[in-house]
Amino acid sequence: MSTQNILLILDLVGVFAFAVDGALTAIRTARVDIVGVLVLGLVTAIGGGIVRDVLLGVTPATFQDWRYVTVALTGGMVAFFLGSRLTRLATPILLFDAAGLSLFVVIGAAKAIELGFGPLQAVLLGAITGVGGGTIRDVLLNRVPTVLSAHSHLYAIPALLGAGTVSVAHVLGFDAGWVAVAGALLCFTVRVLALRYRWNAPLPPGAPPV
Amino acid sequence: MSTQNILLILDLVGVFAFAVDGALTAIRTARVDIVGVLVLGLVTAIGGGIVRDVLLGVTPATFQDWRYVTVALTGGMVAFFLGSRLTRLATPILLFDAAGLSLFVVIGAAKAIELGFGPLQAVLLGAITGVGGGTIRDVLLNRVPTVLSAHSHLYAIPALLGAGTVSVAHVLGFDAGWVAVAGALLCFTVRVLALRYRWNAPLPPGAPPV
Amino acid sequence: MSTQNILLILDLVGVFAFAVDGALTAIRTARVDIVGVLVLGLVTAIGGGIVRDVLLGVTPATFQDWRYVTVALTGGMVAFFLGSRLTRLATPILLFDAAGLSLFVVIGAAKAIELGFGPLQAVLLGAITGVGGGTIRDVLLNRVPTVLSAHSHLYAIPALLGAGTVSVAHVLGFDAGWVAVAGALLCFTVRVLALRYRWNAPLPPGAPPV
Repeated sequence: MSTQNILLILDLVGVFAFAVDGALTAIRTARVDIVGVLVLGLVTAIGGGIVRDVLLGVTPATFQDWRYVTVALTGGMVAFFLGSRLTRLATPILLFDAAGLSLFVVIGAAKAIELGFGPLQAVLLGAITGVGGGTIRDVLLNRVPTVLSAHSHLYAIPALLGAGTVSVAHVLGFDAGWVAVAGALLCFTVRVLALRYRWNAPLPPGAPPV
Repeated sequence: MSTQNILLILDLVGVFAFAVDGALTAIRTARVDIVGVLVLGLVTAIGGGIVRDVLLGVTPATFQDWRYVTVALTGGMVAFFLGSRLTRLATPILLFDAAGLSLFVVIGAAKAIELGFGPLQAVLLGAITGVGGGTIRDVLLNRVPTVLSAHSHLYAIPALLGAGTVSVAHVLGFDAGWVAVAGALLCFTVRVLALRYRWNAPLPPGAPPV
Repeated sequence: MSTQNILLILDLVGVFAFAVDGALTAIRTARVDIVGVLVLGLVTAIGGGIVRDVLLGVTPATFQDWRYVTVALTGGMVAFFLGSRLTRLATPILLFDAAGLSLFVVIGAAKAIELGFGPLQAVLLGAITGVGGGTIRDVLLNRVPTVLSAHSHLYAIPALLGAGTVSVAHVLGFDAGWVAVAGALLCFTVRVLALRYRWNAPLPPGAPPV
């Protein structure tokens, strides 16, 4: 399978995962109707990619290509109809979110590299692709974004690890397709372990403990 | 009158309506001074068009052309000086908002078509143009955006109908100018009827009724 | 010293000041870990410049050039380690913020002029550069942005004065480098005087006094 195809499939799986995540979060935390559920699913799923592409100066792919919007709306509909069962389980939301995060950070970093950006920019753009959609979702729902919260169990750190894997591997000359899979697995594993064992990043000196 | 002129006039009327709407919302819901009133009027009036143009990859027209900023600041000043009377009446805010919404969704869809985007993108860009400014306004004021609220009486649906009219008419080969007027009237009518008769979109299964 | 060098140095000093300001604000008003502190410092420091560059249609300089990110992260680290002492003093935050604001408004206006935008656009883009990062920071922290608050002691007005100085001086044919220094000093002075003497902009007629 070509690198391009691997990245496209990972991207669409990430869009679906984030759409379900965003729609379930909307149902669980706010008073939204079907439009709100679909909009929040869509924003969570394609928001990070749009911010990345605006920063890269290209027309947003997640917006241009009808497959992204269709997959995102499908994820939102699934969450809308199954949400009353799924929301009792916080775990699926976290797993969908971890999957979306892992896939998006490697896609974002790979796209930045492909367009000729440097390694540091690739890491940042990967992380922005991963956390961007969820951050817009949280801002729209009036919540402090997960990426900033001291109780979020290492949200940004696995994102930076995943994007960093892609960036470093590119500098070392590895093939982008399978490196993306490896980076996504690393990000997903660290995120899930952090959730499981309640790892947190250091607080500012003098801050009361969590 | 040329299509171009019809669209420009509708656009500037929409800017004025949204500026008054945004400024009145600021006065009614937050503790803002004249700067805050004008900024929120300006953001509400030109925010949606800016987001649309950034997504389209063109320099924001509402920002480049001095007429937009001037009309928006004028609307904000009107609201500032008359606000203490107008805010007692919630209806004018809703009508100005419905007018701005209706005009912007058709302008946004028409601009996307003009720049060669597909019909699905035109519908989404029209809706984004319509709801974008108000959404930024609500985010700045720490409110859950109207477009997401389950009590908003079909905000996004008339927007999608108006933009959809322009998009479908373009596919069928109709003239853009008068189609825009028709799409705006459809959006406005549905929105006002939804407000009058308290129509709401379906809630997620299992959610408590409104 | 060349105009280009003066502007770059002012820009990096502004980035440092805003990064410290954003990171201290995060520590003082929310429950954030080291990632949150660094992200909020970074967003405050380079957010305004990114919004400006997106509106100008160019690749964001603050994002492309590694020096901006490095200086912003350094400012965030300083705030992280010294924050428990500094946060007891609200004054340093306000002074760092005033410095960042003053430097960014003149940089933003100068860059808009350099890219061929008109004087009105230059003033708006200067103000957006100055207030943009802090506004994104406040939105992420769920606070009403300083620029909108009736108690903010003229935040937008010094910004417009500083950017206006650069814009008017350009129309009159003055050299951009030293005009930028003068505009920044004017903005800083008015902002600090407004804080010291508690100046506020007019409230809407009929609003209860502050």
